[in-house]
Amino acid sequence: MKLLGLDPGLRTTGWGVIDATDNRLRWVADGIVCSDDTLSLAERLAQLHRGILAVIALHSPDEAAVEETFVNQNPLSTLKLGQARGAVLLAASLGGLAVAEYAPRLVKQALVGTGRAAKEQVAMMVRHLLPGCRSTLADSTDALAVAICHAHHRSTARRIQAALESVP
Amino acid sequence: MKLLGLDPGLRTTGWGVIDATDNRLRWVADGIVCSDDTLSLAERLAQLHRGILAVIALHSPDEAAVEETFVNQNPLSTLKLGQARGAVLLAASLGGLAVAEYAPRLVKQALVGTGRAAKEQVAMMVRHLLPGCRSTLADSTDALAVAICHAHHRSTARRIQAALESVP
Repeated sequence: MKLLGLDPGLRTTGWGVIDATDNRLRWVADGIVCSDDTLSLAERLAQLHRGILAVIALHSPDEAAVEETFVNQNPLSTLKLGQARGAVLLAASLGGLAVAEYAPRLVKQALVGTGRAAKEQVAMMVRHLLPGCRSTLADSTDALAVAICHAHHRSTARRIQAALESVP
Repeated sequence: MKLLGLDPGLRTTGWGVIDATDNRLRWVADGIVCSDDTLSLAERLAQLHRGILAVIALHSPDEAAVEETFVNQNPLSTLKLGQARGAVLLAASLGGLAVAEYAPRLVKQALVGTGRAAKEQVAMMVRHLLPGCRSTLADSTDALAVAICHAHHRSTARRIQAALESVP
């Protein structure tokens, strides 16, 4: 089961692919897709969209996950982020992937055990949980974190399902 | 020259196609694309995107135009609108259309002659300028208004260009 984590942004969108089989996590790949800020908004959105479609075509993930957006105090930043998020989620959706959304608090809790962990602690845990991952880019590390969170929640959901089915 | 106006929204996205040839405007078609609010965000964005791609395939517009977004006071609404806008602009961009953006003030000025016109005045002028148009949906009327604004600005830009070229 391959999972794609996404961290959308208009300038830079981070992505990370992990393999989650039998409760074991394995790093597959991560990176960023950038948009050229000399182009029009519509062209920038198309760049992000095509970039994520290319990642999906290359790695064939089974499901995707994204952090619920921190709604910024600056409405213009929120609008920009929303537009980038639309283009990126759409790539996953058109690529046939269900997209799960997780609150930032849940992602931190899944990685560090507390919803109030610092960004650096989360990054350190990403590298610890995914041996071989040498990601140093903040955006792709955040994308890997949400993919790991999705792996934990999927496996919990499966265990609950199995327990319910075993009840006579 | 066929122009596509767009009025993006997550629940309802309005669209309108006009023909602008030799400074004459003609209504071609208009309508709305809705998303099903029982589906996930990613699926709703895909619905809007596919709907607008279908409009582009049916009417083959040459250019597109959209109003610059009124940034809402409610950050969550702004984020939702941003996401819908991303999915809709992306459809135009992937459909090979350049997308012009106009401030709401400019759209009102192009239609009514003043940047502070009421919504109803704009709607009345849309129906006046486009004989045959029977649009009564607010969202598709707004989309037609931005298409008309784009037609005016294109023709002004062409006249300036022609004047500059005729200077010996």
